[in-house]
Amino acid sequence: MTDKPLKETARTTMEWGEVEKYIKQAANAFEAYRLCPKSRRANFLRQIAREIGAIRADLVETSHRETHLPEGRLNGEIDRTINQINLFAAVLEEGSWVNAIIDTANPQRTPVPKPDIRQMQLPIGPVCVFGASNFPFAFSVAGGDTISALAAGCPVLYKAHSAHPETSVLVSGCIERAAGQMNMPNGVFAALVVTREVSIQVITHPSVTAVAFTGSFSGGKALYDAAVRRPVPIPVYAEMGSINPVFLLPDRLKHHADATAAGLVASNTMGAGQFCTNPGLMVMLQSPETEQFLAAYGKQLAEQTCHTMLTPGIYDAYSAGIKHLKSIGELSILAEGKTDKLLSDTAVPIAFRVRGTDFLRNSALREEYFGPASIHVIAEDNAELLEIANMLDGQLTAGVWCTDDDIESFSPLFRILERKAGRLMINGAPTGVEVCHAMVHGGPFPATTDARSTSVGTQAIYRFTRPVSFQNYPEKLLPVELRGDNGSDIWRKVDGELTKKSL
Amino acid sequence: MTDKPLKETARTTMEWGEVEKYIKQAANAFEAYRLCPKSRRANFLRQIAREIGAIRADLVETSHRETHLPEGRLNGEIDRTINQINLFAAVLEEGSWVNAIIDTANPQRTPVPKPDIRQMQLPIGPVCVFGASNFPFAFSVAGGDTISALAAGCPVLYKAHSAHPETSVLVSGCIERAAGQMNMPNGVFAALVVTREVSIQVITHPSVTAVAFTGSFSGGKALYDAAVRRPVPIPVYAEMGSINPVFLLPDRLKHHADATAAGLVASNTMGAGQFCTNPGLMVMLQSPETEQFLAAYGKQLAEQTCHTMLTPGIYDAYSAGIKHLKSIGELSILAEGKTDKLLSDTAVPIAFRVRGTDFLRNSALREEYFGPASIHVIAEDNAELLEIANMLDGQLTAGVWCTDDDIESFSPLFRILERKAGRLMINGAPTGVEVCHAMVHGGPFPATTDARSTSVGTQAIYRFTRPVSFQNYPEKLLPVELRGDNGSDIWRKVDGELTKKSL
Repeated sequence: MTDKPLKETARTTMEWGEVEKYIKQAANAFEAYRLCPKSRRANFLRQIAREIGAIRADLVETSHRETHLPEGRLNGEIDRTINQINLFAAVLEEGSWVNAIIDTANPQRTPVPKPDIRQMQLPIGPVCVFGASNFPFAFSVAGGDTISALAAGCPVLYKAHSAHPETSVLVSGCIERAAGQMNMPNGVFAALVVTREVSIQVITHPSVTAVAFTGSFSGGKALYDAAVRRPVPIPVYAEMGSINPVFLLPDRLKHHADATAAGLVASNTMGAGQFCTNPGLMVMLQSPETEQFLAAYGKQLAEQTCHTMLTPGIYDAYSAGIKHLKSIGELSILAEGKTDKLLSDTAVPIAFRVRGTDFLRNSALREEYFGPASIHVIAEDNAELLEIANMLDGQLTAGVWCTDDDIESFSPLFRILERKAGRLMINGAPTGVEVCHAMVHGGPFPATTDARSTSVGTQAIYRFTRPVSFQNYPEKLLPVELRGDNGSDIWRKVDGELTKKSL
Repeated sequence: MTDKPLKETARTTMEWGEVEKYIKQAANAFEAYRLCPKSRRANFLRQIAREIGAIRADLVETSHRETHLPEGRLNGEIDRTINQINLFAAVLEEGSWVNAIIDTANPQRTPVPKPDIRQMQLPIGPVCVFGASNFPFAFSVAGGDTISALAAGCPVLYKAHSAHPETSVLVSGCIERAAGQMNMPNGVFAALVVTREVSIQVITHPSVTAVAFTGSFSGGKALYDAAVRRPVPIPVYAEMGSINPVFLLPDRLKHHADATAAGLVASNTMGAGQFCTNPGLMVMLQSPETEQFLAAYGKQLAEQTCHTMLTPGIYDAYSAGIKHLKSIGELSILAEGKTDKLLSDTAVPIAFRVRGTDFLRNSALREEYFGPASIHVIAEDNAELLEIANMLDGQLTAGVWCTDDDIESFSPLFRILERKAGRLMINGAPTGVEVCHAMVHGGPFPATTDARSTSVGTQAIYRFTRPVSFQNYPEKLLPVELRGDNGSDIWRKVDGELTKKSL
């Protein structure tokens, strides 16, 4: 932090020399930080949460000004961010997350004695985190990526998003104050205000060991391409969005057309549609029930107005995307939201309809149009509906709205979707990603660059660790979690059995 | 299998059309195979083990002829392979490996109800496995990569290694017979006899979802580079070898110079030194004890002879590498094995010595010379020894031979090595990789292309799975492992607590 005014600090692009200094500090901080007791790491996280809570009013005011997101939503996002931080602190305190596995020795075994081998997860090193435009708190400075990396024991180099620079400085200050108060090693966290080009330089620096990103496909893929071409490649966890297909089955629509439409219109337009999990694609069967649903959906959407989008650039991209969709002959407009008295850069919600055969032929319809837009695909029959499911790219989420009867009639659909997405849901909107142990916010490419992971929920910590085995190690050299005495009372797999017993 | 003689079948390179047919069969097999009950998968694995046991004599005879490895070693490797297969079968039968995580709903929660979310690991799809030259059984057709992929629920396309083609056909036959007897889906396994170029075509085929490889850096890195440049990138688990540094500390050498030398000479020369975990680099302090160790090591090595190497190509590479090392002025020869009456392509064990400063300056000394060679680095003082540890690349293993006194004097060394390798060991040779739950046979690049994984031990299964969340799913659509009734009696994390209780 400097003494410059917030506005200036937030927008002064750093020189490479300064950036490099922070990278070196992070590399130096790693050894001390990874070795500091997990309880101290937990205290550090809890203090970050307290610091954020302490300046909540300031954060809401600043982020509202910067992002145009409603204050209620921003307050909710701060709650979520604080809960997420405290959840990771609790995971550290409970301690079993290190995945301790112990196979004891058997010196009598023939033909060769069995050694003592003990494994646990260790942190990998400094992580470069890229903040998202659409969540100034939950996926930004002290969001899931930063907190899961810090929980794992990795210093964080945070690339601030230009959509909310002042908010970033304020939250960075929270982390820096918490680090100071909890005597964390110098360099455990740094916020970088850099250009896109310099951010590539950061992730190709030898001291950086992983990348976490939430944003566009082009942004995430550029980071991936740079990281895998390094002399020493590093993992990239880029969450790049998705069209989040939703299948609306006939019996469900027959009985609940209006309620289904209401749920999906709200999910489409909330936050001006600026969610990675926005349901951008809906697939249904040609039928009177489908027409009933579409009429209800269209009517409800026509009554919606959105707020100003996050940035002029995002608005321009949305407008260009909608213009392109409008130019496609096979698409017809199902409904548009209100267009009178709009503030500048305000997205107009829109929904298109298209026949299944036309959808299958046009790959542009499988792309994400970030904002309150949706494409409604009308399949001619069950086979075409399954064909559409089969040809989908990897997704963050996929959903089905259905009754028990529908489940019987469309059973192959559920198996297909298991191969397409990170999170599957029944009769629910994809927006609203619960922060919990079981969450997967991830999915096959192009939804992310690494389907083996999640960026939300406690399992996110494993993105920044690797397993290490210790063979025939004396007690005093072992990490505490692997010693004979299970002093921290964690779950361990000992000779194949989960137990909390000491050896 | 065809009716052609073994020799011909083993060496007839397949046309792309045939290869593509097997890829399509694997893709088609995936859906049926992933959904077949885990107990049936376990029975399939156990049957593979039985089939291998049933033709053991034939396998030993054939592989000995092809690889020149001693029959005792080959018999031991078959034991290990069978044990490994049965261990994975046991993991499937126990069932907890799917990592079931359940967060139950709370409809009363404000401001939004908490959904029911359940996560588990699901298989990713067909895996292309590349066999190793140096383990015709344990890292080849029915080796760890194939078996962990089959255990996970993934069909396997196996690229046979040209170092032991007839052995490959015999073991492939075991898998194919087991698949037939256990009614596995057609295409669950296929052995491919293809050129290196065609193997790249295989891994860039859209239906292939992961790659597992054990071999050279150049081979593994070529696969990695091709896989990350696919339109849809896929994970590559390439184990590319290592120099497996061993630090020999002064108090250990003072008291156990001869025994330490005996352990390391055996580890260096066993199997003609053709192990990924061969201790190719030894680092010690300039001292009378070190000279005593080096004298013992040199004397013992001079008495060693090795057998013919695996292939003429491997022998040529070893010879060229040793010739290069002999040309480096700063290296002196510590000892060479016997050279009289050698069979063709027989590696001569050799050990070099070099000063720490010279080692630090010459990156060629940090490369792997696959065979019975080692480089002994004499550091001038503790600081230089630690500097050498610090500049090491990623390794499969790193070891320290030490006493309690040494541990006190060199405590920073152990922390440095934790960041360098997948497996760390005290007072033991790195060769001999135990197949168990806690093993990590992996490590930071360039030892592997993915440090987050292991290719040996039961954790290897997670290379071929990804987590999937099910939100508000009805019981009947959930995989059995996630249903309310914990019928398979597996460990699950329910609302943050590990339990075997039903909901």
